[in-house]
Amino acid sequence: MVVILKPNADRQRIDALLKAVEALGLKTNYSQGQETTVVGLVGDTSRVDIDALKANEIVEDVKRISEPYKKANRRFHPADTLVQVENVTIGEGFFHVIAGPCSIESEEQLCSIAQDVKKSGATLLRGGAFKPRTSPYSFQGLETSGLKLLLEAKKLTGLPIVTEIMGQDQIEDFADVDIIQVGARNMQNFRLLKALGQLRKPILLKRGLANTIEEFLMSAEYIMAGGNENVILCERGIRTFETMVRNTLDISAVPLLKQQSHLPVIIDPSHAAGIAWMVTPLAKAAVAAGADGLMIEVHNDPKNALCDGAQSLTPQQFDQLMQDVKRRAAFEGKQMCK
Amino acid sequence: MVVILKPNADRQRIDALLKAVEALGLKTNYSQGQETTVVGLVGDTSRVDIDALKANEIVEDVKRISEPYKKANRRFHPADTLVQVENVTIGEGFFHVIAGPCSIESEEQLCSIAQDVKKSGATLLRGGAFKPRTSPYSFQGLETSGLKLLLEAKKLTGLPIVTEIMGQDQIEDFADVDIIQVGARNMQNFRLLKALGQLRKPILLKRGLANTIEEFLMSAEYIMAGGNENVILCERGIRTFETMVRNTLDISAVPLLKQQSHLPVIIDPSHAAGIAWMVTPLAKAAVAAGADGLMIEVHNDPKNALCDGAQSLTPQQFDQLMQDVKRRAAFEGKQMCK
Amino acid sequence: MVVILKPNADRQRIDALLKAVEALGLKTNYSQGQETTVVGLVGDTSRVDIDALKANEIVEDVKRISEPYKKANRRFHPADTLVQVENVTIGEGFFHVIAGPCSIESEEQLCSIAQDVKKSGATLLRGGAFKPRTSPYSFQGLETSGLKLLLEAKKLTGLPIVTEIMGQDQIEDFADVDIIQVGARNMQNFRLLKALGQLRKPILLKRGLANTIEEFLMSAEYIMAGGNENVILCERGIRTFETMVRNTLDISAVPLLKQQSHLPVIIDPSHAAGIAWMVTPLAKAAVAAGADGLMIEVHNDPKNALCDGAQSLTPQQFDQLMQDVKRRAAFEGKQMCK
Amino acid sequence: MVVILKPNADRQRIDALLKAVEALGLKTNYSQGQETTVVGLVGDTSRVDIDALKANEIVEDVKRISEPYKKANRRFHPADTLVQVENVTIGEGFFHVIAGPCSIESEEQLCSIAQDVKKSGATLLRGGAFKPRTSPYSFQGLETSGLKLLLEAKKLTGLPIVTEIMGQDQIEDFADVDIIQVGARNMQNFRLLKALGQLRKPILLKRGLANTIEEFLMSAEYIMAGGNENVILCERGIRTFETMVRNTLDISAVPLLKQQSHLPVIIDPSHAAGIAWMVTPLAKAAVAAGADGLMIEVHNDPKNALCDGAQSLTPQQFDQLMQDVKRRAAFEGKQMCK
Repeated sequence: MVVILKPNADRQRIDALLKAVEALGLKTNYSQGQETTVVGLVGDTSRVDIDALKANEIVEDVKRISEPYKKANRRFHPADTLVQVENVTIGEGFFHVIAGPCSIESEEQLCSIAQDVKKSGATLLRGGAFKPRTSPYSFQGLETSGLKLLLEAKKLTGLPIVTEIMGQDQIEDFADVDIIQVGARNMQNFRLLKALGQLRKPILLKRGLANTIEEFLMSAEYIMAGGNENVILCERGIRTFETMVRNTLDISAVPLLKQQSHLPVIIDPSHAAGIAWMVTPLAKAAVAAGADGLMIEVHNDPKNALCDGAQSLTPQQFDQLMQDVKRRAAFEGKQMCK
Repeated sequence: MVVILKPNADRQRIDALLKAVEALGLKTNYSQGQETTVVGLVGDTSRVDIDALKANEIVEDVKRISEPYKKANRRFHPADTLVQVENVTIGEGFFHVIAGPCSIESEEQLCSIAQDVKKSGATLLRGGAFKPRTSPYSFQGLETSGLKLLLEAKKLTGLPIVTEIMGQDQIEDFADVDIIQVGARNMQNFRLLKALGQLRKPILLKRGLANTIEEFLMSAEYIMAGGNENVILCERGIRTFETMVRNTLDISAVPLLKQQSHLPVIIDPSHAAGIAWMVTPLAKAAVAAGADGLMIEVHNDPKNALCDGAQSLTPQQFDQLMQDVKRRAAFEGKQMCK
Repeated sequence: MVVILKPNADRQRIDALLKAVEALGLKTNYSQGQETTVVGLVGDTSRVDIDALKANEIVEDVKRISEPYKKANRRFHPADTLVQVENVTIGEGFFHVIAGPCSIESEEQLCSIAQDVKKSGATLLRGGAFKPRTSPYSFQGLETSGLKLLLEAKKLTGLPIVTEIMGQDQIEDFADVDIIQVGARNMQNFRLLKALGQLRKPILLKRGLANTIEEFLMSAEYIMAGGNENVILCERGIRTFETMVRNTLDISAVPLLKQQSHLPVIIDPSHAAGIAWMVTPLAKAAVAAGADGLMIEVHNDPKNALCDGAQSLTPQQFDQLMQDVKRRAAFEGKQMCK
Repeated sequence: MVVILKPNADRQRIDALLKAVEALGLKTNYSQGQETTVVGLVGDTSRVDIDALKANEIVEDVKRISEPYKKANRRFHPADTLVQVENVTIGEGFFHVIAGPCSIESEEQLCSIAQDVKKSGATLLRGGAFKPRTSPYSFQGLETSGLKLLLEAKKLTGLPIVTEIMGQDQIEDFADVDIIQVGARNMQNFRLLKALGQLRKPILLKRGLANTIEEFLMSAEYIMAGGNENVILCERGIRTFETMVRNTLDISAVPLLKQQSHLPVIIDPSHAAGIAWMVTPLAKAAVAAGADGLMIEVHNDPKNALCDGAQSLTPQQFDQLMQDVKRRAAFEGKQMCK
């Protein structure tokens, strides 16, 4: 951490600052320049409060030099994390596709889609029981009865299930869910993250729509700080000025997350663009960029879907995509069967 | 709502679409152009699922024409809403300043600040008991004991209190809080919004850092749809590409929200910039742009603050600001005493 | 185009508006709804001034329905455009890599790099003679003597050359340049675009760092409206809130541009991220997403480069990348030799 | 400037780097920490190429500590710059309103508006002769004959004139223009900036729609580095994710620019929002935030304007605004008459 002092800072106040910082167990490195005087803080700065430093009258600015995340940081954990879900291994070297409807609508709908996506090669089933909808007047999901249908679909197909949690009070209801998803809007719901840190169940953490890579990894850190290291990161598009797509897929998030962290990284091309025909080109890019998997929305009747129909593939379109994804995963040397 | 059809759309499918839409109680208005054919949907379209429409093979695009919010919409409720908190009236014609520390640290700290801000003219006291912090290693607030200190400070000063809720399971603990604040990161925590809609207590709803005005009003709509119409909107800066400030204050949100909605609008200049010396110019702009109030962080010792020291004013700085704000509110013809 | 009228608009003024629009040769389609009244404009609306319409007292909003670009629009020109540069064909079905230094520094530097990139499989040579630098104190390029060195490198290697123009007064100096590049900062330098429209030479048009796909295609339209249809579109990263990369590569621009337009689309992964090690993963994603080529910065001694050293590959790194790109282009069924 | 080294960097390479930097006349300050090793560069770092440093194999990151602008920097020029245009003084302590039509359409139009805005209190006349339009099919301005009309309007009213230049080849044609405007799209047209640096005429530099404050000041620096210190900065809205307004007015730019620089700062509320009714609230906010002036579009017949009608005020609306602005400038203690 580097502290930049104001020009003509009072020497007594500088000494007081140096003492205060040294009292935190840090060494200081004072360097007076022509225009600017800088103090380097050496040691474990992850607990230093940058805001308090900036509030000091003699401080002009503070710049962080080492990352604020520790457990999610590849620097301290060089080996790739592999997350195990029943007999599915998620992480570097493998490639898995999570597929299913945006929201669960009925037993017939879910089971039919589950069987279809399994046949095409998906290894995990997604489906929303609780839906975060922008409008209070939109369909909000089947809720707990949706969770039951997911378990039936799992029994039928053997596919482990992934579904989104909305708050920590639902954790008990999610006891039989294989991977708990934290949606983009909850990425900084810190109490939820802390509660999930107490579990040992895999967590699929989606990036918030305007959150930086650093903030994303800090949210993973929240879960890991509690002891749950089974975190899967999911990039699903960020908010930009472009209006032709719902979100802009940040493809560079894949290599960045892989470099900064040891956690698995998957891509959700359905939410990224919000348009069904763009799912395939974005999925191709994701495989090539080094993602460990995809999360894709499939619906047997998109034009009557109760949610996100515009971005859902039909089972036929999904099957075509999967034929292509299999060839691409093989090209990248990734293992797709469990 | 306007549905744009693909060129050469099949006549039979068009008829099916028209019938389906008419079955929802809407009239349709079919208009075939040289290059594009358009269907206008006439009636209450707030329950039409745009995504399902877009998923139809013959549909190229769908454009919404009327706003998706009803209860928050000035079109249907032209009169300004005034929110009453004890003897404080918040809304058009009045101007109130909510002040206090970012986080409550001790009885001495809170009571001393509370007395100071009251003396300077603040009419409501803020203070964080539960703090949403980006890092799991940062101070997370005094939690329930912080709430108790707030009540003591209220007893001491008579100032009604405002504090942030983190989840709907805390609602009982917030029974004595005068205004419940929903933070920017929870603006789309829809279950929390629904639960708050069941109360009749005023809710101070902060705009999410990358949420549009429409999404902001839809979140207000969530609360109002439950029957709680005491919503105060708070703009606190949005995320942009600029790096010299923490967030970019969207001053145009004030006239936009005032035009689109009848709800009170306040500005938080402390979080907007994240820098203490910028609070004053932004506060001046807020008064001039038509805001109904300000929310400002004050700390007796910013450089030792446990949270957000860099943006906190000292009681002396706050007092200076208030002298200026009073002159400005008078200039605008707004009433500042309760 | 759809014109939304204000509620309770005066009937006489509505009639005046309808007449005015019909005088432009458009048909109007009037549709009165419960809450909103809408007028559809049918015909060629590309010359209608939306701003003038919005200025009418009875108009609430105007929404465009068909794209404002014609010549760049795939709707009117379904076949892919192939741009011919000597014996290199750029466009759908082919894949070309443009490589070379950010800025030309000396004959030795440029010729050495040119020979290296040719050996590795690049089919076009890039090199900056005039450099747009953020700081007036940075190296501004060798200017006209740089152009001469480019021609020598072309003579030596046979590679057609691509270099950036800064203003229309330089067009004569660029007479021997094979492809004239318009940089991101000049994407809306409309006088330059018009002047380039008078040539028949290929133009490589880079997307501005905060320009939408629609604005990008409108800039291509400027060139094409003058009669020069040899436009190559280049996505090079957009500005977002993320700070770990210089720009965010908008990978979805590839399928979007391909769908909206018939022009060739290439990707510049060097400028997108601004970091050398990220060029390779982004290049892989670009091939998979359907790009027709890449533009890559190569320098024989990045740490002494006078410009953009941080994002330049060494010739050895570039050679490795090209081995991989060749396999990927083959996988996609694209032709890489001219 | 602070250079962060990679962990386990080779000692010999570190020594080579230190030597290279010292050869540039800088002192180095080496500080080895637990996790990171940092080298501080002390001295005038404005000519150090950050990219070349980052390209060094042992360098992980480089952080700038002092601003890259010198002449525009208040640190080195504490006194406010006052720009003199005939008998109008622009800068701290004064408040001027530049008004006129978006584009000049005819002698009658321009002269009528010029007389109106003068009567209302504007002290400078704006009017576009050359117009940068997004579409090649839109009206492009009266060009040189527009310039002549401006001079006539000046003769008639005595108001000094402000108009936009499109390229450095037009400088001679602009000999009689009082203030040359550089539009947002040309903010980084560095050759134009350099050419304007050779003049001694005031330059009104508009901020690019996605440019940071630092980049904005670097563009001012380009002009000033040539010797022309008569630069007026103009904030006119930035591009964000919000869609209800054309641009988002960055009101915090006013205090930021005033703190970082000594140059005058004005606000263009017409372009910021793109909606006529929002001009007034944004203008009020601009005065309060400390701006030195406003630039406002006025048209005698907005609904028939050839350009930007939607954001133009009528002379009557402008007169009302000016009555209010005069009261506000007086409140701020600013001088409005020349």
